[in-house]
Amino acid sequence: MTTSHDVAKLAGVSQSTVSRALRGLPGISEKTRLQIQRAAEMLAYVPSDAGRSLSTKRTRVIGVVSAELTNPFFPELVEPMRAEFERLGYRMLLIPDSSENPLEIDRLADGTLDGVILTTVVLGSQLPHRLAARKIPFVLANREIDGIQADTVVLDNQLGGKIVASLLADLGHEKVAAILGPADTSVGRDRGTGFQQGLSERRIALLPERVRNEPFTYSAGHKATIELLAAAEPPTAIFCGNDVIAFGACNAVASLGLIPGHDITIIGFDNIEMSDWDLFRITTVNGDLKGMAENAARLLIRRIASPDGAPERITLEPELILRATHAPPLGMRLRA
Amino acid sequence: MTTSHDVAKLAGVSQSTVSRALRGLPGISEKTRLQIQRAAEMLAYVPSDAGRSLSTKRTRVIGVVSAELTNPFFPELVEPMRAEFERLGYRMLLIPDSSENPLEIDRLADGTLDGVILTTVVLGSQLPHRLAARKIPFVLANREIDGIQADTVVLDNQLGGKIVASLLADLGHEKVAAILGPADTSVGRDRGTGFQQGLSERRIALLPERVRNEPFTYSAGHKATIELLAAAEPPTAIFCGNDVIAFGACNAVASLGLIPGHDITIIGFDNIEMSDWDLFRITTVNGDLKGMAENAARLLIRRIASPDGAPERITLEPELILRATHAPPLGMRLRA
Repeated sequence: MTTSHDVAKLAGVSQSTVSRALRGLPGISEKTRLQIQRAAEMLAYVPSDAGRSLSTKRTRVIGVVSAELTNPFFPELVEPMRAEFERLGYRMLLIPDSSENPLEIDRLADGTLDGVILTTVVLGSQLPHRLAARKIPFVLANREIDGIQADTVVLDNQLGGKIVASLLADLGHEKVAAILGPADTSVGRDRGTGFQQGLSERRIALLPERVRNEPFTYSAGHKATIELLAAAEPPTAIFCGNDVIAFGACNAVASLGLIPGHDITIIGFDNIEMSDWDLFRITTVNGDLKGMAENAARLLIRRIASPDGAPERITLEPELILRATHAPPLGMRLRA
Repeated sequence: MTTSHDVAKLAGVSQSTVSRALRGLPGISEKTRLQIQRAAEMLAYVPSDAGRSLSTKRTRVIGVVSAELTNPFFPELVEPMRAEFERLGYRMLLIPDSSENPLEIDRLADGTLDGVILTTVVLGSQLPHRLAARKIPFVLANREIDGIQADTVVLDNQLGGKIVASLLADLGHEKVAAILGPADTSVGRDRGTGFQQGLSERRIALLPERVRNEPFTYSAGHKATIELLAAAEPPTAIFCGNDVIAFGACNAVASLGLIPGHDITIIGFDNIEMSDWDLFRITTVNGDLKGMAENAARLLIRRIASPDGAPERITLEPELILRATHAPPLGMRLRA
């Protein structure tokens, strides 16, 4: 069997240089790295995980858990994470499920990953507690849970909801609806709480029959919008818990022959790329996905380096993005 | 350190039952499996990869390599793969990069994966040859390469292109354009070849200045459409190499104040979920993503079980999906 010594001999470098180069550690010139890679290729050398962990106890592989990759928010969050990990000399694997059951946790804790980023926890998730108990470095990104001291990178979702409430109040809306995300996610809950608070401060009532908690999907947004608009007194503005729900809302409005931003106001959340497409131009709240991704990656790498430091919490600022789907209520403009 | 024997003792079962249960093998009742999981949890037992591979040389983990997760085609392809692998007792990890460099290949070959599905190979990819040389079970799904005997699941992309050519000919289009995918992908190449052949059979010329090879992205489709429509003699129909390019085309058309399916015909390819949204309703070719995903998963599991059988090739049938973005050329309708 080929060993790293054989590779070192062929490449004309020391064994420790081979080992460093193949583990992607810094301090090796690009030329030497290529030389070593070619030698390793020629000898069909496969570094064994066992050998690697024995010498360093590190695999330089990170797992990112995401349960909703068909929601375009997550590929857009995950891609800058991948780029940042690559820059930092780590590889990223995506674990496309919720990993809530004990077998899954064993898998995360079996030594093949140096750390984990969780992007889709729900409020009752046990997984973060289990990871903490086993001292697996992890970071909560995008969504968080209550009652845990853990590294966390989230948007100030409550402030985001408040900003939307202020906009609707400024525009003169009084009949307001909300299609929020699931109540068992921090993101769904906090955006809703902030929106509600913001409206109360402006003395605007949010009637219970005009509030829904729905999955973060197109079809949920579509269906809820059709139902809200079928009411005897339909809302003049709908706050959507994310852009994908807002896409459903805009398409539903279009299917009724109405125009978002003219006949009705639709506000999204996240500012994913699609929200700026010509056919949508959704007024939304910027969720700084790139900043969230890069901060989460760096936080995890810091945690791996010093496992016992105090947990950090990074809160990103939301920002209103005014596009084409907001306007004063139609009746008000007709009176004007 | 806790061993599987300790877990077996606590759960009151044999050590081999523990081993089978924790590897997700069949033949264990749900009740026993839960009992064992609880025991493993209580003892904080972590099955080591080394121990697992020594006893079975299998990890029951599959890697799916995809370089373009922000293209919604891939999450939609990967999700039914995940579900099928879960059904078959395997876990799936996503490897979100092209894994073209030797270090990456070592990673795929380091024994932590039982097999690999490649979804985004380009025609010059060396990776499939390297995997074959190292006898790593793998399947090419969606895209293929020439000159390799390997398990493959693809759509009949050439036939798909031909079907679109027939539709445009039947509608009476003579000034036809194509925004194809990258020429170095089988999917980009074969859809283009089929389209060209189909047009020649109907004696319709496809002028070189009306053909583009572009990345499979919204912005590429948007930009190319604006340019094609700015020509002295603009096309009356545009065939797009995938739905995402078609979204770009439809938005570009809308930004010019024109209506797809009225002023100009736009045809997509793949039939991803978004193509049926009210604001698009794109006429497209169904790529049977679910069938592709499930066939690829099953093929890989068969290959892992019998590494030396002859490679299989599964070709799925494309199907035209008529929606709202096709029509006879506008001039023809005005004359009629």
